[in-house]
Formats: sequence, C-alpha cells, structure tokens
Amino acid sequence: MIGTDLLGIEDLERADIERILDTAEHMREVGRRVVKKVPTLRGRTIVNLFFESSTRTRASFEIAGKRLSADVINFSPSSSSLKKSESILDTARTLDAMDPDAVVVRHSVAGVPKQIADVLAAPVINAGDGAHEHPTQALLDLLTVKLEKGRIDGLTVTIVGDILHSRVARSNIYAFGKMGAEVRIAAPPPMIPAAVETLGVKVFTSLREAIEGVDVVMALRIQSERLAGCYLPSVREYSSTFGIDREKLKYAKEDVIVMHPGPVNRGVELSHDLTDHRPSVILDQVRNGVAIRMAVLYLLSGRRQEDAQRIDLGSGEGR
Amino acid sequence: MIGTDLLGIEDLERADIERILDTAEHMREVGRRVVKKVPTLRGRTIVNLFFESSTRTRASFEIAGKRLSADVINFSPSSSSLKKSESILDTARTLDAMDPDAVVVRHSVAGVPKQIADVLAAPVINAGDGAHEHPTQALLDLLTVKLEKGRIDGLTVTIVGDILHSRVARSNIYAFGKMGAEVRIAAPPPMIPAAVETLGVKVFTSLREAIEGVDVVMALRIQSERLAGCYLPSVREYSSTFGIDREKLKYAKEDVIVMHPGPVNRGVELSHDLTDHRPSVILDQVRNGVAIRMAVLYLLSGRRQEDAQRIDLGSGEGR
Amino acid sequence: MIGTDLLGIEDLERADIERILDTAEHMREVGRRVVKKVPTLRGRTIVNLFFESSTRTRASFEIAGKRLSADVINFSPSSSSLKKSESILDTARTLDAMDPDAVVVRHSVAGVPKQIADVLAAPVINAGDGAHEHPTQALLDLLTVKLEKGRIDGLTVTIVGDILHSRVARSNIYAFGKMGAEVRIAAPPPMIPAAVETLGVKVFTSLREAIEGVDVVMALRIQSERLAGCYLPSVREYSSTFGIDREKLKYAKEDVIVMHPGPVNRGVELSHDLTDHRPSVILDQVRNGVAIRMAVLYLLSGRRQEDAQRIDLGSGEGR
Repeated sequence: MIGTDLLGIEDLERADIERILDTAEHMREVGRRVVKKVPTLRGRTIVNLFFESSTRTRASFEIAGKRLSADVINFSPSSSSLKKSESILDTARTLDAMDPDAVVVRHSVAGVPKQIADVLAAPVINAGDGAHEHPTQALLDLLTVKLEKGRIDGLTVTIVGDILHSRVARSNIYAFGKMGAEVRIAAPPPMIPAAVETLGVKVFTSLREAIEGVDVVMALRIQSERLAGCYLPSVREYSSTFGIDREKLKYAKEDVIVMHPGPVNRGVELSHDLTDHRPSVILDQVRNGVAIRMAVLYLLSGRRQEDAQRIDLGSGEGR
Repeated sequence: MIGTDLLGIEDLERADIERILDTAEHMREVGRRVVKKVPTLRGRTIVNLFFESSTRTRASFEIAGKRLSADVINFSPSSSSLKKSESILDTARTLDAMDPDAVVVRHSVAGVPKQIADVLAAPVINAGDGAHEHPTQALLDLLTVKLEKGRIDGLTVTIVGDILHSRVARSNIYAFGKMGAEVRIAAPPPMIPAAVETLGVKVFTSLREAIEGVDVVMALRIQSERLAGCYLPSVREYSSTFGIDREKLKYAKEDVIVMHPGPVNRGVELSHDLTDHRPSVILDQVRNGVAIRMAVLYLLSGRRQEDAQRIDLGSGEGR
Repeated sequence: MIGTDLLGIEDLERADIERILDTAEHMREVGRRVVKKVPTLRGRTIVNLFFESSTRTRASFEIAGKRLSADVINFSPSSSSLKKSESILDTARTLDAMDPDAVVVRHSVAGVPKQIADVLAAPVINAGDGAHEHPTQALLDLLTVKLEKGRIDGLTVTIVGDILHSRVARSNIYAFGKMGAEVRIAAPPPMIPAAVETLGVKVFTSLREAIEGVDVVMALRIQSERLAGCYLPSVREYSSTFGIDREKLKYAKEDVIVMHPGPVNRGVELSHDLTDHRPSVILDQVRNGVAIRMAVLYLLSGRRQEDAQRIDLGSGEGR
C-alpha cells in the first residue's frame, strides 16, 4: 500500500508502482480532452514548496493539480520569509497549519522532504532532493517505457552519465529494478558511486558495451563544472565518449528508445538530431509527467495523517 | 459598520470586530471539510499586492481567497515594472482599472495602504505597513484567544518585546483594548514607544511583574540588529531577560496561553520547548488566520466605491 | 481569418481586427458584472511565459484568462531553469508538451514569439517582443478609441515620442492604418525610424503641427537613457518640446482624447494634470486591455495545430 507520503522509489513496493502507473494511464486521457479538467480534487489545496528553482517540475505539478480542480499555491524561497532565517521546518509547519491536502517539496539538500514529512500532517511529495531521489521523474520514465514497449519486465535499460550526482539515476535504478528490468549504468569512473553494484546494476565504463542489445538508453544531464575532476576534463571529450548519437545507437536493439530528463545540453549528452527526433521520446516524458503527477496527487491528497482512516481511497472514482 | 477598507484596528468599532470574529468562526468550519471551498466569491478578483516579501501572510490570503472561490492574482515588486520607477500609486491605479474586488497591500512604509485606498475604487486590506498596523494579525489573535478562553472581555494580555517597531503590537493594543481586555506591555525601555500609556496599556520593564496573573502572553519577534541600541546588547541577554520559558510562565495564571506572530527565533523569544508545545498556540494562530482572512475578504469584496450602494452586504449568506 | 497565433498587427486583415474588437465589446460586459466570470475556457490551460518583467500586461492576461475560467500558469525567467542555460525554445517545447491551449510570450528580443510559434503546437500570443510589436496593446488602443469616438475610420491619430524603439508605436501604426485612420508621428529626428513613411504615416518634428486638428494624441513612454544621443539631451527639454499639456492640446480638435500605454513618467510625456484627468483615457485603456485579452484568448485557445480542423470556432458561444 502506498503510504502517506511519496519520498522515494526505494520505499515503494512493485504493487504501489503498478497502481500509480495504472492511475496515470487514466489521467493521460484527461490531458487529451478539450476540457482537460476533472472535479476530483475540488476544494483541496496543494502547496508547491520549491526551495530550488525549476521550470518543468513546478509547472508539471501545478498543471496536474489544476487539472484535478485543486487550488495550487506556489512558494519559492526567494519570495518567502526564509530571508528572515525562518527555518525550513517552521515554514513547512506554518503552511501545514493552513490545512493543505498535499505539499510538494523540492530542495537542494538530500533528506529535507523526509524531515518535512516527519513534522507535517499533510502528505509530502518529494519533487527532487539533492542527489537523493526524484520519484515522480522515475515514475514518468516507467510510464513512458511501458507505453512504448507494452511492458517493463524483462527489458534492458542503460543509464548514461553522472550517476554519482543524479537523483534521477538513483530513482530510476530503484524503479526499473523493482519492475523487473535489467539496469546498466555507463559513466566515467569518477561519476560512478561506490558499491553501486549492491543496487543490482551492471556497471560499464565503455558506452559501446553498455548499450549493446538494450531496449532503452537514458542519458543524464551533465553539469560541466563536475567534469573537472574526471579524466574527461572537457565537455567535448565527454560528448565524444558518452554522448549519444545515431552511430553509437547501432549497437542497441533496432527499436531502442532514447530518454533524457531534460533540459538537454544539445550536442553534449545527445546529438542535436537525437534531441529533436525519434527514437528519442523526451517530450513524451514531459507529457507523461503531468499524468504521473495527477495520479500521485490523486492517490495521496486528502491523506492527512488524521484523515487516513476517514477517507476511503480504495475505489478512487467519485471522491 | 465596517467601511470600505480595512486599514487598521484603530478605525474599527467593537461591533465591527465582533462581526468579523463571528463570520470567521463560520469560515473555520470550511477549513475542516474535505472539500474546503464555498462558492461565495466566485467570479470575484482579489489582488495580493505585496511590496514586502512574506510567506505566511501572502499564503494565508491566497488560500483564503481561493477557498471562497475567488480568483487570486499575486504581485510582488521584484516581478513588476516598479523596476521602471513606476510609482506605487500608479501601479495600484492600473491594477484597480482591471476591476478587482479587493486589493491586499503589504508595504514596508507606514501609511502606504491608506494612500492606495484613497485613490482606489476597490476595497483595500492592509496586510502590514511598516511599524503602523497589521490588522488581520490582531484579528486572528483575538479569534485564537476567544476560542481558547470563551471570551476576551476581562482578560489580561501581556505583549512582550520590541513594541516600538512592531505593527503587530500596535494592532493588538487597539484590538484587545476595544474588546475589553487589559493590555500590558513588557520591554526594554528603548523598545517602548513614547507616551504609549495614552493607548491605555500598562507598561512594565520587569517581565515577572508584567506576566503576574495574566491569561495571555504574546511574544513579538525580535530583530537582532535592533538590540544594538538597547541596554540588552545581545540576543542572549534579551533571551534571559525577556524570553519566555516554562519557569517564567509560573507567575502567570495556570491556564495561560502563549502566542507569537511567527516566525519564532527559537530559544530567543520563546524556549524551544514552548515553541512546539502547549500552552503555546502558534499553529492555531496560523490556522485561524485563514478563517479571519476569509471573513474579511467576504465582508469587503464587492464593496467597490461605486458599488457600495448597489450591493447588499447586510445578511451575508447567498451573495 | 485569424490564424493560429497572434504575433503582430502586421499579419492581420481588417476583418480580423474587427472580429477581435466585436468580441472584446462583449467581454467588457463580463468585467462589469458582480460575478465577472464565464465558463468559456473551463479546463483550458494558458501559460504566461514572460522573459521580461511586467506588471500590467501579465496581470491583464492572467485576469483575462481567469475570467474565462481557464487555468493560468505563470513563468518568468528568474524562477525558471533558464539559469541552467536551457534554451528558450527548449523551455517553450517543454511547456508545450504539457498541452497548454495558449502560450503568451513576452521577450526583450524581437522575433522570439515567432520563433517559439514555429515550434509549438499551442497558439502563441505576442505580449511584446523587443522593439517589434505589442499587438494586444494596439488592439486595446483601437477599442478605446472606438468606444470614445464611435468609429476609427477617418480619424486622425498622432503618436508622439520615441517611435524608433517602440513596439507600441509600431503595432499602432499598423492597427490604425488598417482601420482607416490617418496616422501621424511626432518625435525628435533621432527617434524616427528610417523610411517610416513607407508605413503610410506622416512625419512631423514639430509637435504643434503634428497635433493640429487631430482626434487622438498618443504619447509614448520615454526611456531617459535614450535621450542621450538626441538633440534634446535632457528630460526637461524633451518635456518642454514633446510633452503634452493642456496648452499644447489647444491645437487639436476640441474633443481630442489623450492616450498613453503606461506607466507614465509624470511631467515628462504628460503633465501631471493630464495624467489623472480627461481628456486622457489611460485607465480606460487598462480596463479595455482585459477585454481585448479575453477576446484574443477566446478566439485562439484550443487552436492547437492538430486541433485546428476539429474545433469549430465559427459561432463562438457555447464552446
């Protein structure tokens, strides 16, 4: 059973993930209507508490909430009294006292959403915390693969790039692993976390070997300032060794798809051509992100700790 | 009768205050529902015009407006053309020409909400102006005390801290005084306004004497930079002399409650323990703040100057 | 026929403009109701993508969208991942993948809205791009004149100020020209674009001659830093030569009206007195701006490129 919060994929059972994906497939239909709105969360309040700036994730949660008819309130640290050194937890407690039905948290420090969840009555959804987890990103990646391939179980997925600093990688390693896929990672050695094999992944330092015969290649965004400590000191060298283009994709399965959490450094992680055209599915990922966030908000909203018994979330429709 | 604007508690009659508190008690029920929304202000436009940054107050007004089904539009100077030196009043006039039903104003300079109200057709609600007034804060404090004690008349309330620079203190001195409470203030002498006794308060420089036998202790937020000119030059000294903890509370009534407008400097104005636990009621104050703002928006919205005759605000329900 | 986007007045036929003005006249009535809301765009998503800060235009579009019952999502570069050097077009593509029904774009560089429109499925509305066009400003100016004078055809309109750098001037030159008005411009020579006569305007360097017998005087906002290269090196000199006051207005028709896109530099482009009182109609322009934006959003929303055939926009009512 999905708990009160969504803090990371690590905490979820396969059945939880499947329930979210099934719900999201229904939500996708709402986004294709002319009237893209259902009354499901009318009168619920969703707070977007983003301590770290974001275009796509904040927009995605805001649109998701509004399409469910919820009221969405945005906060970012620059416009808040955190300038007055109010502590993060006291800010969260204050917002909680206004009785929101969900609080979506992004912070540059790993673990902050968990700390906030520990003191809040409202359900907390992690929208990315440091290098820890970004669970809705992994869920939208699962949904995108499932819609493309019809299944996740038995596929092989290669994640390429700065695994060490990537919350997207971490959440996806858990997500695809729990759903029965084989997960490979490919990166320069300094970008591979110690003992990452214990998470069940196969580690490659050769991109060619890593993508040989795979169904999915997922490239991560590179922060150029993090290349300094690597044996690939320049963006150009990174691109020639770990950047994905059609030539390198020949080693993958013929129907391989290419994913990227965005924004792409064009010509670095992906060639220009691949950024814009199939087999990359980047904009499908974005579109599916709204459906995933609708599903997560739907499944968690109203689950304030004191309400958990009162509100029946089982059947879903008609709440 | 409540006028067209809410600029300060100083302008209100006791009957006005009672009407707002009664309305807010009804509004509190809306916040406890699963569907926290009433159609009362559907199709009304509320503008939050915050020249000074704020987490809790802006959030509180935004949530209050949305729970009444109003459309809420946020403006803050950083994202506005005030960078182009557009004057404050011309900005307000421009927003007014878009026919809002209420404009909520916060500004660091005392008197700006009044100046704006003088040129606007829309009702103006002061959300804090310099060291002048913060009327909705005082109203939520009254509501919190009323709900805790069953009455306000005849109680004794001690306000502790930097009275001189505090709009919260000023509004609360008027508010509790008009409602029949005895108001005491306790502060280092440099933080006591000249001739404050003319407002009907008793002045103490000893915290112990100030809280002897009182029903309510209200601590104010301290700006550490303002301690410099006091005989209590450090935060530590302030804390030991005027900070509230369980030891010092022993002199108050047994059922005393402790209030703070937030955010608390933990360990300074209040001990850590008191910040988080009864008898402090800080998060109740926040929750009641939403109800007070719903009440104020409900009572004032639609009172554009040209509409004042046309719209019957008397009975309230069903507008 | 109005196309998929509204990028500039230059692209419109007179019949398009008339249709927008007629629709806006209906929308004006909505703004005068107590319940200022129609269900027309319920379930539609409108994105305000403002790369350049703005008070009045962003507010106007947000209020317009909400009065049509659309969900409005605001983005500004400071809170977006453009800090991470995500390109403008990739940001727009990402937002587009969330299936908005219209994207309103403001950018300091001419041509950006067109570039964005070329890659988006959603209709794009230009809310001002560099010194190129600001079509909804010109439309609201047309509406204001039409409501004041009963017609536009045959009137004479003088635009005064920095024509060279003004997107407002450019859009209005097209707009009033297409609607059959005579357009004159008056400015210091360095502020007159080369070959501007080819746009069908009469050029004056004497304000008195320019406003002789005209129906409308439209003053533009002056950026004082741009006066440096002119023979009018100071704001004071500009004001005495090209600033409008009651004395200079005597040369115009008796029933002349004075317009300004705001914010006014009081005492520079217009005298203080004229800024606040008839015959200036500045706040009517603002009010009409909401109606124009409602009309444009109504006429364009839902016109995603793949939907253009599917959705019948002809009759309007009841969508």
